Amino acid sequence: MRTLVLHTERKTQLVDVTASVREALEGETGTAALLFVPHTTAGIVIQASGEGAAAVAADIEAALETIVGESWDWKHVDEGDRNPWSHVRSALTASSVTIPLEDGELALGNLQTIFFCEFDGPRERRVHVAVI
Amino acid sequence: MRTLVLHTERKTQLVDVTASVREALEGETGTAALLFVPHTTAGIVIQASGEGAAAVAADIEAALETIVGESWDWKHVDEGDRNPWSHVRSALTASSVTIPLEDGELALGNLQTIFFCEFDGPRERRVHVAVI
Amino acid sequence: MRTLVLHTERKTQLVDVTASVREALEGETGTAALLFVPHTTAGIVIQASGEGAAAVAADIEAALETIVGESWDWKHVDEGDRNPWSHVRSALTASSVTIPLEDGELALGNLQTIFFCEFDGPRERRVHVAVI
Repeated sequence: MRTLVLHTERKTQLVDVTASVREALEGETGTAALLFVPHTTAGIVIQASGEGAAAVAADIEAALETIVGESWDWKHVDEGDRNPWSHVRSALTASSVTIPLEDGELALGNLQTIFFCEFDGPRERRVHVAVI
Repeated sequence: MRTLVLHTERKTQLVDVTASVREALEGETGTAALLFVPHTTAGIVIQASGEGAAAVAADIEAALETIVGESWDWKHVDEGDRNPWSHVRSALTASSVTIPLEDGELALGNLQTIFFCEFDGPRERRVHVAVI
Repeated sequence: MRTLVLHTERKTQLVDVTASVREALEGETGTAALLFVPHTTAGIVIQASGEGAAAVAADIEAALETIVGESWDWKHVDEGDRNPWSHVRSALTASSVTIPLEDGELALGNLQTIFFCEFDGPRERRVHVAVI
């Protein structure tokens, strides 16, 4: 298992980690790559690459902020920590994603990028990469 | 790795792919089956089979259209592509799901069906199936 | 493959199953642990442990009830079964999650707990645990 380290810059931010995942997989052989996020206010999604990708990422960030409203009646707020919405946004994305490998390469679609999803940044974050 | 090809017929549509996945797994032995969707406006969920399943699928389709509203203030719309909501609906479902195998058979529950989720159809789509 | 059995007590309830998963993995060696929920009105998420965790779980339960409203115009209701919202809440979480193993131990973050998500309880439920 290898571990990527990244630094997020905004409260809600999709960060393209595809190149780092590819680097972690160099020289590895297996059937699939498992990505795992060891955090509870972050997640992972596979989304759009190429032209328009930045706008799609920004739209996903904004949409998750809309779907899970910070003005709702939260319990966790009363206990000092102030990010219950971050946990819910995390629960709506994924903690793990598994991608098939073909000849050692990620079998991503042409238009796919792997995004780490920050929901309580900025922070230092990790993504575990294991070959299965 | 094998790849299923399917053709969706509606903009938002859950398509039962369980039989095709079973066919792709015939003669394979392993611990689990990995399903991966190489698209960014589609997803995969495991949901209800049998009586009432069509109504459940229709309810999930309608609910995802409600949860992610097309009238929201989207950025990606201005760049020519007009489906940011499709990407968000995709991000809320899953790109990969892994199902244990028992004696070469999917260890699905009695009431479970594998659905490909189309969020920007109609289109030709793919699902990768790998045995781990 | 081993199967955990649990009994939920409320309609919507996150149940910490981390200890049971660890017990199921004792003596096993492999690269990752696959958790799979064989139900269509339940799911699995990895969320917060420790102080404040109960409040976070309660907030996630309430948020999923808010995000998927029971007063919406549902089709499945007319067919006798009355829980279409449970299926949608299930579809928004995950049916499977895969966690890397290090020296036979789950590579969870310090603040992570594995939660079974009940969306149509109380019921007897199962979680499959397979080592990959």
